[in-house]
Amino acid sequence: MTHGASPSLAPKLLQHPHPRQRFVPSLDIGLWCILFVAYCVWHRIKSSGGGLDLGNESEAEWAGEKEIQDFATIDWTYYAEKDRNRRKQGFGAMPRSQFFRVLTSMYDAMQSWLALALTGFCCGLCAAMVGMGADWANDMKFGMCWGRGFWITRNMCCKDSMNILSCDNWHSWPKILGYAEQESEQMLSYAFYTLIAVTQAGYAAWMCNRLAPYAVGSGIGEIKVILSGFVIKRFLGGWTLLVKSLGLILSVGSGLSIGKEGPFIHLSCCIGNLVSRAFSKFANNEGRKRELLSCACSAGIAVAFGAPIGGVLFSLEEVAVYFPPKTMWRALFCATFAAMTIQRVNPLPSGKLVMFEVTYHHQWKLFELGVFAFIGAIGGLVGAFISKMNVRWSKFRKTTALKKYPITEVMVCAAITSLIDYTIVYLRGSSTLLLQALFSECKNSNPATYEELCNHENGREILTFLMLSAVIKILLTIVSFGNPVPGGIFVPSLVIGALIGRAVGFALQLLENEVGDIGVFYVCRSATSCITPGIYAIVGAASVLGGICRMTVCLVVIMFEVTGGYEYVLPVMVGVMMSKWVADAFGHTSIYIKLIQLKGYPHLDNKREYHFTERASDVMTCRDLFVLSMHGNNVESIEGLLASTTFQGFPVVTSHEDMLVVGYLSRSSLQRVMSKAAANGRVTPQTLCSFGTPAGLPDDAEAAESYIDLSPWLDASPIQIMETTPLDRVIEMFRGLGLRYLLVTHNGQLVGILKKKDILEHIELYRKGLADRRNNPDVF
Amino acid sequence: MTHGASPSLAPKLLQHPHPRQRFVPSLDIGLWCILFVAYCVWHRIKSSGGGLDLGNESEAEWAGEKEIQDFATIDWTYYAEKDRNRRKQGFGAMPRSQFFRVLTSMYDAMQSWLALALTGFCCGLCAAMVGMGADWANDMKFGMCWGRGFWITRNMCCKDSMNILSCDNWHSWPKILGYAEQESEQMLSYAFYTLIAVTQAGYAAWMCNRLAPYAVGSGIGEIKVILSGFVIKRFLGGWTLLVKSLGLILSVGSGLSIGKEGPFIHLSCCIGNLVSRAFSKFANNEGRKRELLSCACSAGIAVAFGAPIGGVLFSLEEVAVYFPPKTMWRALFCATFAAMTIQRVNPLPSGKLVMFEVTYHHQWKLFELGVFAFIGAIGGLVGAFISKMNVRWSKFRKTTALKKYPITEVMVCAAITSLIDYTIVYLRGSSTLLLQALFSECKNSNPATYEELCNHENGREILTFLMLSAVIKILLTIVSFGNPVPGGIFVPSLVIGALIGRAVGFALQLLENEVGDIGVFYVCRSATSCITPGIYAIVGAASVLGGICRMTVCLVVIMFEVTGGYEYVLPVMVGVMMSKWVADAFGHTSIYIKLIQLKGYPHLDNKREYHFTERASDVMTCRDLFVLSMHGNNVESIEGLLASTTFQGFPVVTSHEDMLVVGYLSRSSLQRVMSKAAANGRVTPQTLCSFGTPAGLPDDAEAAESYIDLSPWLDASPIQIMETTPLDRVIEMFRGLGLRYLLVTHNGQLVGILKKKDILEHIELYRKGLADRRNNPDVF
Repeated sequence: MTHGASPSLAPKLLQHPHPRQRFVPSLDIGLWCILFVAYCVWHRIKSSGGGLDLGNESEAEWAGEKEIQDFATIDWTYYAEKDRNRRKQGFGAMPRSQFFRVLTSMYDAMQSWLALALTGFCCGLCAAMVGMGADWANDMKFGMCWGRGFWITRNMCCKDSMNILSCDNWHSWPKILGYAEQESEQMLSYAFYTLIAVTQAGYAAWMCNRLAPYAVGSGIGEIKVILSGFVIKRFLGGWTLLVKSLGLILSVGSGLSIGKEGPFIHLSCCIGNLVSRAFSKFANNEGRKRELLSCACSAGIAVAFGAPIGGVLFSLEEVAVYFPPKTMWRALFCATFAAMTIQRVNPLPSGKLVMFEVTYHHQWKLFELGVFAFIGAIGGLVGAFISKMNVRWSKFRKTTALKKYPITEVMVCAAITSLIDYTIVYLRGSSTLLLQALFSECKNSNPATYEELCNHENGREILTFLMLSAVIKILLTIVSFGNPVPGGIFVPSLVIGALIGRAVGFALQLLENEVGDIGVFYVCRSATSCITPGIYAIVGAASVLGGICRMTVCLVVIMFEVTGGYEYVLPVMVGVMMSKWVADAFGHTSIYIKLIQLKGYPHLDNKREYHFTERASDVMTCRDLFVLSMHGNNVESIEGLLASTTFQGFPVVTSHEDMLVVGYLSRSSLQRVMSKAAANGRVTPQTLCSFGTPAGLPDDAEAAESYIDLSPWLDASPIQIMETTPLDRVIEMFRGLGLRYLLVTHNGQLVGILKKKDILEHIELYRKGLADRRNNPDVF
Repeated sequence: MTHGASPSLAPKLLQHPHPRQRFVPSLDIGLWCILFVAYCVWHRIKSSGGGLDLGNESEAEWAGEKEIQDFATIDWTYYAEKDRNRRKQGFGAMPRSQFFRVLTSMYDAMQSWLALALTGFCCGLCAAMVGMGADWANDMKFGMCWGRGFWITRNMCCKDSMNILSCDNWHSWPKILGYAEQESEQMLSYAFYTLIAVTQAGYAAWMCNRLAPYAVGSGIGEIKVILSGFVIKRFLGGWTLLVKSLGLILSVGSGLSIGKEGPFIHLSCCIGNLVSRAFSKFANNEGRKRELLSCACSAGIAVAFGAPIGGVLFSLEEVAVYFPPKTMWRALFCATFAAMTIQRVNPLPSGKLVMFEVTYHHQWKLFELGVFAFIGAIGGLVGAFISKMNVRWSKFRKTTALKKYPITEVMVCAAITSLIDYTIVYLRGSSTLLLQALFSECKNSNPATYEELCNHENGREILTFLMLSAVIKILLTIVSFGNPVPGGIFVPSLVIGALIGRAVGFALQLLENEVGDIGVFYVCRSATSCITPGIYAIVGAASVLGGICRMTVCLVVIMFEVTGGYEYVLPVMVGVMMSKWVADAFGHTSIYIKLIQLKGYPHLDNKREYHFTERASDVMTCRDLFVLSMHGNNVESIEGLLASTTFQGFPVVTSHEDMLVVGYLSRSSLQRVMSKAAANGRVTPQTLCSFGTPAGLPDDAEAAESYIDLSPWLDASPIQIMETTPLDRVIEMFRGLGLRYLLVTHNGQLVGILKKKDILEHIELYRKGLADRRNNPDVF
């Protein structure tokens, strides 16, 4: 099977009847990469020490008056209110003419659309460049474009040639070194393949490790956390975008068992974040910014799979926590813009939006649904296995000496991967081509290398190789995903699933050939063969991906957008459903949630249903309840409060005896008032701080000079719940309203404060089985 | 253009290379209809007076212990809590073995899936029957199947014939009466066409008017209201389902400018409601039942357009208010099940899921995007116009003498429609075939009658007829939608849009033929013609529908599921976006919301963003605040309270002086306790009613006999907000949590109660411009 011919890198471009003109000049992709490498190194050398900032320091500035701490949670209601105020004030300041109001409101609305279009366009461009770069990096392992420049991909290089395999411009490494057609050619190719892969992977790892630690992995988990309202500084910065793009090209090109599709989501969000800074509507509003990021997420999937609708659903179902209906339309706009950009700039060989277009000549039969369910179950098992093992391997990486040698780890991993993959013809080329071949029908649409997939004469051999490839890919994926290089798990899991599915389909086809049209195959009597292994491959791919990521609706939609095979929605659904059921038996959480938990980020899973018996009073913070009374504070006491606590805010009550809630004052406001007051010379530690006029003072201007009035900074609309409220309802409130805290009362009196983190800690304890709630309520 | 040949009723079945075997016997469709007519009449005669109940009386029973009033709003949190309790109790009562728990939980999970599958299956079946029935009713206007039985549709009748136009079994009316090939044939056909149409429409109107008043219209508005938590009894009953199915067959068959697709959603919800009664999980829980109804909605769109994903998005975006992520997957399951059922039972001629499959041989060019935007703008204008005029006509119908003669109105409308339509060849046949023709490319895929659409020789004549047809269809739709017969506006608006779009495309094509490949057409130089009017028709159809219903994402998805044309997502998006912008300039509300407002149902639009400056205290009820104090009530005072008020519940406070909130007690609980107490002989009007032990009484069993303890019925977790909370945030809370009421406090003391109805009234006042809020806050 490891036949000696030079690996065919899909002459799809030439097979297409009307290859469309590319917009991007074919030459500059490699050049682009090299320029950026140079820039990165130069920048690294130039800037001394840690502070490599390309604008990602300024997150605090965007927030305007309210400084945001790293690893803090934002409050959606606060930003929703802020946006409303901005709108009202903006309109109020305008000339009162109806015309200007309409104009202002139109510009206000246009801002969003402009930002969305820009985000979509940049995402498409970035993805196209990364895609072409990865192709180039992948081709480099086999040889280079001798005739036209080394920075040109094989497809571009051989554009004019009729057959990509016998292209004059493209030289393999042995040929360049003059060893062509000698005995050592094969060995030399092997050596070059491995060597270049290891170099690429090592360089990618070095870059990420030294330049942008947040660039590693797929980033989807962190995006989930950020979109749920958490702040991780630098994660979405321009520097991360640059390093991740470049690292992705190299790491994917090196042949590691990772995909570039997952990281596209991270890249898109970086772009969304950068774009948001240019528009006042988003720049100063963390809530609105997250809306734009949700849309950018959709664009990420749209460019990764050419699936704008799937992208919107992915964002809605998997990533975003707060997704009002109007965001959906904006997300679709952004995603379609991105998909169209990439279609025009176009790294997809078919020139269409559909990535792996399938056209089958047979309808599936009803009895096949059983097989699809079986494949789904297998996919669920495999997915759960990969997920579990990968998380275990990540833990191992984190806790042992391995974490000290990230670059070595990646290089060793790349070396093993290349050494194995080169010997297995299915795994040697790019994953995209393999998927294309596995999904396709056995007509002449198959790329040449994969022709054997349809060869029934040595059927058992093919079957063995399919299964062997699947097993190797599973093992490689387990150790590769999570490597300290950029890379996602979407495509590897699709490949694994497609291999398994194709194997099952192929086996069934062999069986049908053997036994003829009896039994269940009776319905096939009219056709020569009614089993289309490509459908099985699609179902398998969806099932394994479903088992790992626990996606449902968006996965079905993505699969059918990727294949364009609308007739196969039901098979894919059956597969995904079975996969989810089976995988859920081994734990309900997707690999992203598991990795989030492993990294210790706070995240309230919006799909999970909890069934707690606790009430709000069991979880809230009440022992260390620091409150401000309306009157009776002075500068000294407040500064003491600020110094002795780290809370993000304080409830304000009528008095310490009554504890009736008046409002909530955030720490940052309090700090600002205090520092302002300190700048004013007349303030002494004994100056009163009060909400409204203090008791005993007249309500006039002179008296107003003698105390600090805190009431303008008071948030007078915190939400209160009774202490007996069931925890499940509390969780629903946190999710539904995007809250950060709730005030808990008993008979009207404040008895505690319930923060999102309290709930997350409770869930974490519950998950670990430590929550012995009845006997030991003090544990919280 | 009104050429004399017998109207061709699309020999699509025969054109399809492999016509698949139908599962439903071809004979029984007409029979089925007749049987039901007979049953309806018999039932009507048998049952005396108004009470025609087929199980739809028992809504009160399903709710279990809490009786639900008609036209009341339900509280989602109450039912969510109830579901959790059911689950917990259910598991608690079980043997404590792990195995049984797993089994119970599995059965509990299975219940949903079973209910969904059953709903999907029944929806598919019902839609298939209604679809075939409507075809039959439509064919009946032209003639009948003489050879094989009058209850057979033309397609079935001519199954064996090679050409549907010269089918021996099918006899036109003149032929049956012996006037074939005579001069009077044409006039006789005309007369029969009109007469039968009027009879059908009249009968449909009579049925709805006398048997099920809720069966009229599309029902989508009411479904929206119901899914937002409102209760409309009998609206989803079995009787409504029966009458509406039958009425729909006749009204659509009569050729009125209404579609059967919208009412499919109502029918599906009826089925969902009936199915929910069989499953304990849904029967007693209004909240869960609404989840099932959301899924049924998706199934409705899935069967109407063969668009399961579009259905899910429709339900998510347009109809449902409370749509947790897991419901999405269930909705997709239900929708796919329904779509597959209808595909197997199959009234779609193509045998595929895609309704109007399009395969174009040209990619659209960039310059065409401008034209698509133009079509979108026109579509938006037309949509807004139709929407406005239709609502005005509905108001006219409601307020004048017209409302007394619903049946006459429908018959006159049908007569006019038939008289006009018969003379216009495009409008004579069924809308589905017209749409098929308008969307299709000018290759041989067109049905014979519509061949002229591609005839460029008399281009101007065709253009005139396309525009004329559009105008006629617009006028007819304005007066037809809302007629007291079942019927929706989806397909009429699609037809209008497709006519307009096709006309624009056709004009452009003529222009291209005239001027040649110069100017913008320079990009077309390589092809003979690069304008495909079919794409323009698709864009136009989406635009007009968008302008009327203001759907966005789901419309794009439905359009591409309907056409299978994935390459045309961007044109459709551009059209829909322009359409929405243009239409929004004439008011933000869709026709459904307008009709809801006209009918006076309460509905909090979940897509609309409000920008109020009011705070909670401006809208809440405070003057007539009836509260219960914890102590100091007796039977007499409580019965007085119940008698003097109609509120659905009462806040419970510590005392009338403190007004600190303790909880909330619903009216129904209070009534039940009181009636129970009254049944107990020892209760006098002076018996104390208290929450917990009354002051001064010892906490022992003897004392417990002497007062009524209300605390077990207390809902101890109402949500409180401060009176200064902005109204916008309050609206977000109502939407996000599905609340019915909020308690409003000031410094911890209860100052008012804010009900969903208060907010709706406020919005209504605001909409009417009556809310002079600053000067006259007492208006609320």
